[in-house]
Amino acid sequence: MRMLINSADTVVADALRGMAAAHPELEVDADKRVVVRRDAREGGRVGLVSGGGSGHEPLHAGFVGLGMLSAACPGEVFTSPVPDQMLRAAKAVDSGQGVLFVVKNYTGDVLNFEMAAELAEDDGVRIEQVLVNDDVAVTDSLYTAGRRGTGATLFVEKIAGAAAEEGAPLERVAALARRVNESSRSFGVALSACTTPAKGSPTFDLPDGELELGIGIHGEPGRERRPMMPAREIAETAVAAVMEEVAKVGPAEDPVLVLVNGMGATPLLELYGFHAEVAAALAARGVQVARSLVGNYVTSLDMAGCSVTVCRADEELVRLWDAPVRTAALRWGC
Amino acid sequence: MRMLINSADTVVADALRGMAAAHPELEVDADKRVVVRRDAREGGRVGLVSGGGSGHEPLHAGFVGLGMLSAACPGEVFTSPVPDQMLRAAKAVDSGQGVLFVVKNYTGDVLNFEMAAELAEDDGVRIEQVLVNDDVAVTDSLYTAGRRGTGATLFVEKIAGAAAEEGAPLERVAALARRVNESSRSFGVALSACTTPAKGSPTFDLPDGELELGIGIHGEPGRERRPMMPAREIAETAVAAVMEEVAKVGPAEDPVLVLVNGMGATPLLELYGFHAEVAAALAARGVQVARSLVGNYVTSLDMAGCSVTVCRADEELVRLWDAPVRTAALRWGC
Repeated sequence: MRMLINSADTVVADALRGMAAAHPELEVDADKRVVVRRDAREGGRVGLVSGGGSGHEPLHAGFVGLGMLSAACPGEVFTSPVPDQMLRAAKAVDSGQGVLFVVKNYTGDVLNFEMAAELAEDDGVRIEQVLVNDDVAVTDSLYTAGRRGTGATLFVEKIAGAAAEEGAPLERVAALARRVNESSRSFGVALSACTTPAKGSPTFDLPDGELELGIGIHGEPGRERRPMMPAREIAETAVAAVMEEVAKVGPAEDPVLVLVNGMGATPLLELYGFHAEVAAALAARGVQVARSLVGNYVTSLDMAGCSVTVCRADEELVRLWDAPVRTAALRWGC
Repeated sequence: MRMLINSADTVVADALRGMAAAHPELEVDADKRVVVRRDAREGGRVGLVSGGGSGHEPLHAGFVGLGMLSAACPGEVFTSPVPDQMLRAAKAVDSGQGVLFVVKNYTGDVLNFEMAAELAEDDGVRIEQVLVNDDVAVTDSLYTAGRRGTGATLFVEKIAGAAAEEGAPLERVAALARRVNESSRSFGVALSACTTPAKGSPTFDLPDGELELGIGIHGEPGRERRPMMPAREIAETAVAAVMEEVAKVGPAEDPVLVLVNGMGATPLLELYGFHAEVAAALAARGVQVARSLVGNYVTSLDMAGCSVTVCRADEELVRLWDAPVRTAALRWGC
């Protein structure tokens, strides 16, 4: 087991202590497992709360801050957080304008956010929810009914967060978040499985020289195994799968936002080379790229591989994408 | 071979094409292998040029931009760039104020930057050089005479870059860069070796359940192999090794800057947990941490592991560290 940890039991609490030490601008409760932007209640903004299993860092705690999330609730590795965490977060960030829950489509997350929403409403906090389900690779997996939520979560959190920062009301922030999700699709590829601290061995067996197409972010197997392919062919496969759906969204002249996301163990050198092929595959389809982001953002522990997320974006979405953001993992414009 | 590449021969050129596609604010010459900040010659600033073998991304090209490098010259993977690249970069960024070369202490880099400095001076460009040699683990390795240059490179480039951005003259920028290097020490740990595209197999053999202390950033073995240790003990070992030297620098009341750096394949979840232990080990020594940075910044392809860099920083260094920076990989304050 090649892990830089104290013990499998303390991985999440230890990471939260480290976040607290590194980011004094965040209020980190390592016991209750809630990470809150210190000025969350200032300015009378709508609150944005997300969360999910740990192991996908910087998602979600790395996206807490100005122009993005108000709070994040990390669960155990690949395990949903509990309703009490979301409830606590909702109360900590609500300034009376209500709170949007950003929920990735996994059965545990959906149930627990739903329960937290009911409890929060009982306590007088207005809640809207958006379900992120962008992964075109599989419907119904070990963790989900329907499509999984993966890379588009970053687009939803960034764009809805920008709208909230500007003072948009809850209904509008929620509508924007839903529009971003509906405009986005993702496809992932694994070159290796990942190893969870609790299990200590790879989640599936992928022989050297093969790759798994259509993987999720929990080490679950994908939809097809193939002999290793050059980056150009992998990019073409991913872009074809994603654009089949994104082509149905909005006017074809509208540009797209692109996320070339590393799953954790693939070097940035390779991710940039892969991005060149993704950009070429989009250009070959006449798709204009407005903005692109390359790096490890929605990861799966130490999995080697990547995912491509494409979001069709009109002028408004591009403007909100460009709006200032200041979090541990994503910063620009301020 | 688990790599997201087209072929071992095109890895660097492909990555540069991807950088060009993702970062329109950079002038990327994928053929000549020079990445230049578009506004490098505006404002009459001193230029900062660095470079070295590829495989350490985001170092160096990811640090080109406002408040950091003016240009970067990537060589082949783990191979020094050639003098023509540095010469080209120096000429592209010199506004008449001269250029500082930031050189990591590896034999090839030192020789080639030296040759480029002579050629640039012949062409009328004033050059100063700073040699970064912060790694306490080994003196004289496969790649170096003396200590290796690793994580402190980030501190040198950030702080000297901030001074250049403020309009400091060449001698002052060079003196600051040297002071940062002399105030910084690093220690690295590998949980796995890395695999270069050309070789296609791990650079050394590290059995599961063992770790290598005192590794560099080129897949060269370290100074000692041990059975796997908890993160707390690894942090204590690294901090002890680093502070033995940093304790000799400046007044003990002065705080430090800390970089907890991933080597490429270690999840951010683990890096933050490790940072908690590094912070504790420094606190136990009465060392005050002014700022800390956690993430993959000076990597070694797909190596699992991390390094700790500590820099003793007086008020001036902390102020320059906090100064605005806007690059692909490091951004704040603007």
